Amino acid sequence: MSAVPRLHVDHPLSEGQTVPLSQGQVHYLGNVLRLGAGAEVTLFNGHDGEWRARIAELAKRGGLLLAEVRLRAQVMPPDLWLVFAPIRKARLEVLVEKAVELGVARLVPVLTERTNAERVRPEKMEAHALEAAEQCGALFVPPVAPPARLGAVLDAWPEGRDLWFCDEALAGSGNVEPPREAGPGAVLIGPEGGFSSAERDQLAALPFARRIALGPRILRAETAALAALVLWQSLRGDWR
Amino acid sequence: MSAVPRLHVDHPLSEGQTVPLSQGQVHYLGNVLRLGAGAEVTLFNGHDGEWRARIAELAKRGGLLLAEVRLRAQVMPPDLWLVFAPIRKARLEVLVEKAVELGVARLVPVLTERTNAERVRPEKMEAHALEAAEQCGALFVPPVAPPARLGAVLDAWPEGRDLWFCDEALAGSGNVEPPREAGPGAVLIGPEGGFSSAERDQLAALPFARRIALGPRILRAETAALAALVLWQSLRGDWR
Repeated sequence: MSAVPRLHVDHPLSEGQTVPLSQGQVHYLGNVLRLGAGAEVTLFNGHDGEWRARIAELAKRGGLLLAEVRLRAQVMPPDLWLVFAPIRKARLEVLVEKAVELGVARLVPVLTERTNAERVRPEKMEAHALEAAEQCGALFVPPVAPPARLGAVLDAWPEGRDLWFCDEALAGSGNVEPPREAGPGAVLIGPEGGFSSAERDQLAALPFARRIALGPRILRAETAALAALVLWQSLRGDWR
Repeated sequence: MSAVPRLHVDHPLSEGQTVPLSQGQVHYLGNVLRLGAGAEVTLFNGHDGEWRARIAELAKRGGLLLAEVRLRAQVMPPDLWLVFAPIRKARLEVLVEKAVELGVARLVPVLTERTNAERVRPEKMEAHALEAAEQCGALFVPPVAPPARLGAVLDAWPEGRDLWFCDEALAGSGNVEPPREAGPGAVLIGPEGGFSSAERDQLAALPFARRIALGPRILRAETAALAALVLWQSLRGDWR
């Protein structure tokens, strides 16, 4: 199986549209994959669907693609945010990749009292989300919000968006049925060390926050996030 | 945070029970962690819950633990099997780890027409499930069935167990509501290359198999498996 390379571009896509390549893409297509003019490439830009394109020119200093045929119509994810305290690198990469696959509209990294702030590198998360989208066939790359303190994010919370709040301290604490109301939503996952008790109190007092439980077993932060995203999509999102 | 080591043992656990260590555990506690007599260890065996224990003896040729207090009662997972065609190593490790966390009673590797058979190493899967359980606080380690051909597994399928069948070829093909009946179940995930059309026909004809859909986006094999396990637990398992 020789796979056709799949690239995200920041450029409109339509029939006959020429699309310039970034330096990184020129290097990847020309030097890594050793492709040349005429080779097929699949393109997406997050709003015009997926396109079959061909390499029109490829030289050291730049390259041009030509979009030919739309292969798939654009599908946007539901209005679901993933709000998360960054975790260890390998697990964060799994989390970002799976969030792209499961369909998240926005990644919102937050700093909590127990977050290791050195882990918060939004440009790395953005690059990883883009790579995950290129590889898994996603049509949308969720933007990454600038990292902010959890308290500040909650203070500026947009009206009408509810927040599912998962906390590993609640594991096994009984049945908390996820709500099914329509409308924009968010899933919040704490850091590996859990929320502080002050943070837990703040969350419990918020009118838009709903505690949800994820069974009697201990889940890692990224597993809890994935499980909450799956439940949200099946109850509220576009898996219904 | 200096974590107390957590070990799985193949030995009954009760108050005052002495528990012999394997050579690997002797090496890990003595040489890697540099612990000695009196140090605390957490133990579980898959049926007697979780115990606080102490090292009673630790020498080159063997060691002995003494179980003191039960910390948590045993919780068994629901009767849910994960039937899966093995995928690439790093992704298989994520799948096995998450299956342990989400609560699976049995891991059933199957060979399909598009399975790379070299990937089927049940002893590696067993070791990885055990390590995942030790690390994530699970109380049960799902056993790994001997690998068999998918057709043979389906021919010998136990009565009364239904099978949720996920197929990436169905992505976006509309709403297939997961059934909510009680009773033992299984989730089947195909290989990275998908099921063959003969396999798809065989599955469609089985009275115990139910096709489920997982939204309009393409999911990798291990993501589809995790999503199906989450839905099963929330609709049929112990997350209700």
